[in-house]
Amino acid sequence: MSRTTNLTERPVAPFRRVTVIGVGLLGGSLGLALRRRYRGVCVAGVGRRESSLAAAKKIGAIHSAHRDVAEAAADSDLIVLATPVGAFGEYLAKIKPLLKRGAVVTDVGSTKVEVVRLAERILGPHGPFVGSHPMAGSERKGPRFARADLFAGAPCIVTPTPNASPAKQKRVERLWRDLGMRVLRMSPTAHDRVVARVSHLPRLVSSLLMLLAADGDLEAASTGLRDMTRLAGGDVEMWRDILLTNRKPILAALERFDDQLCRLRDLVELGDTPGLERFLQKAKTRRDTTLDEK
Amino acid sequence: MSRTTNLTERPVAPFRRVTVIGVGLLGGSLGLALRRRYRGVCVAGVGRRESSLAAAKKIGAIHSAHRDVAEAAADSDLIVLATPVGAFGEYLAKIKPLLKRGAVVTDVGSTKVEVVRLAERILGPHGPFVGSHPMAGSERKGPRFARADLFAGAPCIVTPTPNASPAKQKRVERLWRDLGMRVLRMSPTAHDRVVARVSHLPRLVSSLLMLLAADGDLEAASTGLRDMTRLAGGDVEMWRDILLTNRKPILAALERFDDQLCRLRDLVELGDTPGLERFLQKAKTRRDTTLDEK
Repeated sequence: MSRTTNLTERPVAPFRRVTVIGVGLLGGSLGLALRRRYRGVCVAGVGRRESSLAAAKKIGAIHSAHRDVAEAAADSDLIVLATPVGAFGEYLAKIKPLLKRGAVVTDVGSTKVEVVRLAERILGPHGPFVGSHPMAGSERKGPRFARADLFAGAPCIVTPTPNASPAKQKRVERLWRDLGMRVLRMSPTAHDRVVARVSHLPRLVSSLLMLLAADGDLEAASTGLRDMTRLAGGDVEMWRDILLTNRKPILAALERFDDQLCRLRDLVELGDTPGLERFLQKAKTRRDTTLDEK
Repeated sequence: MSRTTNLTERPVAPFRRVTVIGVGLLGGSLGLALRRRYRGVCVAGVGRRESSLAAAKKIGAIHSAHRDVAEAAADSDLIVLATPVGAFGEYLAKIKPLLKRGAVVTDVGSTKVEVVRLAERILGPHGPFVGSHPMAGSERKGPRFARADLFAGAPCIVTPTPNASPAKQKRVERLWRDLGMRVLRMSPTAHDRVVARVSHLPRLVSSLLMLLAADGDLEAASTGLRDMTRLAGGDVEMWRDILLTNRKPILAALERFDDQLCRLRDLVELGDTPGLERFLQKAKTRRDTTLDEK
């Protein structure tokens, strides 16, 4: 019953033909989400591996599978880059001569300054590109972990430059909102600084914690360490590209973190009871009033 | 049907009268778990706050509630310290003259060298004490979050000294096994070193990450940061005591962590692609082969 209601209420897709480049967890989830959300959307998937394309098609994330981006992109209204960031340049160069008038290009990459600069350089400063970073994902990789609701409830940062067409920017923001995301708007520079602190640094710390424990220690590990090292299981290629394209903000975050770590070490070394209480209480209050889901 | 079967199959409690000192999350869960697991067990709860005692009684974690430990402990077969570690000395001194012959005393504290030393000093080196650290918990505090299955599936480190009675040690290990825990045996020193790396350091890092983000950043935070800062929501008093009673191993872990952090910073600064790949891959492989629950 409610299913029928949903079907008749689904709006017509604002982008009829969509090409998703990269059909992994994010690209696959995007295909599923678009098809669930809109009527009349046609999703073309582009990928390097036959197996991923076949898996994405099998779960219904894409209507058609393509090894050749030209084949898919030529009459698309929306093209979304969903490969690791390091492959963006190659795909942007390939789609440039094919873009249809009015087409919009966006991405799901985790860094924005280099990506937006690259996209504006290749596609033109007043071109079709508006950068996006849907802050959704998982340490799982590949289309078999794709979920239509991956994006729902998560933030999505859209990073227009002063060059961006306001109409295109609105269409991109509307897209993510339609998929249930909370859209935040930031400059590429602000984006990279913020995500270095809330995403990239935590990701690195997760790997550091995983490597700190001695082999025998892990038998004694409990849910705390399991939660804190979940991100360490994430895709190596994707994260390598993130680290390489957001070096300066990550370095700044690492240095600030290290300063705080050294102060904390002093408190422990001195056995400074009120200092340790203040430190623990400050972090607890902040967590309880922001990220807690109690 | 299966419920009836379970009831008839439940063994008679190896400890008939148990006193749990501290009826918070751990003490409350212990009471619930003991009553679910054994027939004929009687649990006395000791606490400072009437409200916690009432809550623990209401959920069925304890049969009787006591502000005065003497009232509860006098004829107990097992006494479990489940307050923050800083209060152990006071309670050990109070129970010492009351202990019945053959009684066993253990605890659920997160540090062991200082705790075991204190217990052997107060109760005697060949006395009734065998230290335990069930590695189960939550960032939630208080008996209302208590669960009979809190311990199931988690590790429990038991830390006998050469002074400990093998019979008492066996009874304590058997208890945790009966509650579904994986029992590991370590010296107090080994315990403190291991948990500094797999539990105390991650807890501190969780608070550091929570404090690193600027206020405005948190709007952009996603599940990654939420998972990594869950521990930062934990009880301040309990963690203060843990930090103060395990300073040296925590300092060693902090220093090793800081060394690794500096090496990683160099890799990022240099944009060392193969080095970053190796770092990410090594942590991922370790996680995938140990803590992953895929």
